[in-house]
Amino acid sequence: MKVSKYLDTKPIQEMPGVVKREVINADDGAPNYCMRVFEVDPGSSTPYHTHAWEHEVFVLDGRGVAVSEQGETSIARDSVVFVPPDEPHCFKNNGEEILRFICVIPFVD
Amino acid sequence: MKVSKYLDTKPIQEMPGVVKREVINADDGAPNYCMRVFEVDPGSSTPYHTHAWEHEVFVLDGRGVAVSEQGETSIARDSVVFVPPDEPHCFKNNGEEILRFICVIPFVD
Repeated sequence: MKVSKYLDTKPIQEMPGVVKREVINADDGAPNYCMRVFEVDPGSSTPYHTHAWEHEVFVLDGRGVAVSEQGETSIARDSVVFVPPDEPHCFKNNGEEILRFICVIPFVD
Repeated sequence: MKVSKYLDTKPIQEMPGVVKREVINADDGAPNYCMRVFEVDPGSSTPYHTHAWEHEVFVLDGRGVAVSEQGETSIARDSVVFVPPDEPHCFKNNGEEILRFICVIPFVD
């Protein structure tokens, strides 16, 4: 068993305004999927993109919208978002605090 | 894309003091793993058990301990726990508020 605090995990910044931490990944021995925590600054967004695997998301703090081809849906603390494989999506922070959420993805070959 | 609030998911109570919600499961189209949210009352615990699949856990609220054969490790908001396959474990609430955590498990045949 490995117990940690998510802030102990090294932050990865691949674009302005978005920080990712891989809090449980293959290095921990995880065999099937990776748990990440994202922090999106007010006014920022994850990229609008699509891929062949799903997202399972739980919102920890802040306010924003989950965007798909059907439009925007408000999200906040305790929101749950399932993004099926091959569905375009992004997460935008339209609030005044950091939008923080968990996003679990499968390991892909 | 499916967006919901976790409290909209039907609670399942399989033992006293522990409520589970399967906030993303196969019925939603999830192909690989299930996201659940647990609420453990003060003084209660999930069962000490073992199984052939992993847990990926994120603590949302409350205080408690993650128990393994190595002993007890304190957990609280923002704690991350990885339980490898076949490792005995449970989660005890030794605080005064509800212990609430996300637990992701793979679908097993």
